[in-house]
Amino acid sequence: MLSLEAIQAAAERARPRVMRTPVVPVSDGNWLKLEPLQPTGSFKVRGFFAAALALSSEQLERGLLTVSAGNAALACAHVAQQLGVPCRVVMFDSAPEPKLEGVRQLGGEPILMPRDRLLDWMGQRGWESEPETFIHPFADEVVQAGHGGIGLEIVQQVPQVRRVVVPVGGGGLAIGVAGAVKALKPEVEVIGVQSDGYPLWVRTFEEGAPPSVTPHTIADGTAAPYDAGMHERLRDCVDRWLAVPEGNLRRAVAQLAVAGKVVTEGAGALGYAALELLPEGPETVAVISGGNVSPDLLASLLDENC
Amino acid sequence: MLSLEAIQAAAERARPRVMRTPVVPVSDGNWLKLEPLQPTGSFKVRGFFAAALALSSEQLERGLLTVSAGNAALACAHVAQQLGVPCRVVMFDSAPEPKLEGVRQLGGEPILMPRDRLLDWMGQRGWESEPETFIHPFADEVVQAGHGGIGLEIVQQVPQVRRVVVPVGGGGLAIGVAGAVKALKPEVEVIGVQSDGYPLWVRTFEEGAPPSVTPHTIADGTAAPYDAGMHERLRDCVDRWLAVPEGNLRRAVAQLAVAGKVVTEGAGALGYAALELLPEGPETVAVISGGNVSPDLLASLLDENC
Repeated sequence: MLSLEAIQAAAERARPRVMRTPVVPVSDGNWLKLEPLQPTGSFKVRGFFAAALALSSEQLERGLLTVSAGNAALACAHVAQQLGVPCRVVMFDSAPEPKLEGVRQLGGEPILMPRDRLLDWMGQRGWESEPETFIHPFADEVVQAGHGGIGLEIVQQVPQVRRVVVPVGGGGLAIGVAGAVKALKPEVEVIGVQSDGYPLWVRTFEEGAPPSVTPHTIADGTAAPYDAGMHERLRDCVDRWLAVPEGNLRRAVAQLAVAGKVVTEGAGALGYAALELLPEGPETVAVISGGNVSPDLLASLLDENC
Repeated sequence: MLSLEAIQAAAERARPRVMRTPVVPVSDGNWLKLEPLQPTGSFKVRGFFAAALALSSEQLERGLLTVSAGNAALACAHVAQQLGVPCRVVMFDSAPEPKLEGVRQLGGEPILMPRDRLLDWMGQRGWESEPETFIHPFADEVVQAGHGGIGLEIVQQVPQVRRVVVPVGGGGLAIGVAGAVKALKPEVEVIGVQSDGYPLWVRTFEEGAPPSVTPHTIADGTAAPYDAGMHERLRDCVDRWLAVPEGNLRRAVAQLAVAGKVVTEGAGALGYAALELLPEGPETVAVISGGNVSPDLLASLLDENC
């Protein structure tokens, strides 16, 4: 588990540059923590600011490099732009167009790779031969600690919290949030959520070993690969796993827009979709992680579900 | 102008029941105050809680009655439900279905009238022969003072604010916000915004007398009738008027969803649509007033503009 001190220091560094996002009630005893309101539309700026502001000036001036399903790319480009250094991002060539265009608008340069080649590049630590300073989007402990700022805020905003629901892709968000919440309130249950259209971690923990799965989900933000190091760390901090049926997830994006007035991407709505699958009772905060959905997908989800 | 003391007292009464909504940056020097995140999806709960909590218990127990284009109806029903008293609401028979259904779900009873009959009912103070305690959705000074809580928060959240942009329907929101902001920072310019599809106040102030206009706008929340008393009060507190072209407004709803991650109704997006029509420079906060848009309208605005 990350130390509380590391999380507090990381959150402190990021604080002037990120939003203290609101927590809004959504149904009896259930709350949503609204990370889509962050700059670049997701929680990722928390970890990337925490990591970039911990670099030496020599490291920072070489520019930033990351690899991303989309949101880490936007966050890294934004952080680099704010700090005045260049940025390149390795991305799936299937990334939604708004995420690609967003990276370019923030002055970042996407490097597109097919899924298999990108996973190879990650497995072979392709970044080591590149000139920039690489920030790993989920395995970097300083990034994870920065995301932990969400957990610190949840405990302040909903002191009676008993359950925290977190979407899981690479796992960095869950590790950061759980680290903060459990350090301050060890009795809180942390629930990891994925879509049944890419239940990588759910099945890894059920079966003891990583399954072979290909993403068939609107939660593109959770399509990160298996990583043995993350497996260890997720085991320590996630108490329960849930796979949300993909149909529920599609409905959840529409419901959040109509009832919650918040635009979410598939991964972003996982925590909300999980609420109806959990036994009622304990005060629960679901982390709504991001809102970078393509307009045409949002429009079809509204048409389909309302 | 409302007194600062009246606004502070009203905001204080409402505070435990309403949200201190976030202010998010949207472009250089421009901020959005996000009232769609309030219970019932608009700012109206602020004024209705302030008013209902100022009633005697005898007045409150008679139940609440209001008249509304939609958002005041939802707010009144919610307030009555929270305080354990019945509620009826006179509404246009053209009110969007989500607003009608929302009132019923909150235990309120809509009384539907065609536009002309409803305006007659208001002109003749039809509520005086009804058993409940009537809360006027925009002409009631305690309601206006409750809305003023938005202005108090804006000055705390963006102390460098120089301009505040407010959508105007009946006028209660503008009077409350302007009262608070100008009492604390008299140099702030208050800009009232309507759609050119129902530019009632814009033309009233241009021409010196109320024009004959029929609403042709997605900003259904601004379709309130002319009222001589409101005319006086708006003259005192709104420094400048802007009519946003209806096409810009339709685009603004889509842009706010995609870029701002916030779902807004037509009236709610007026302040955002106004930003691009204003000269750049002064730090500006636009009040985003509500998010109760029908899912099919939101889907078509996304299809049309993205």
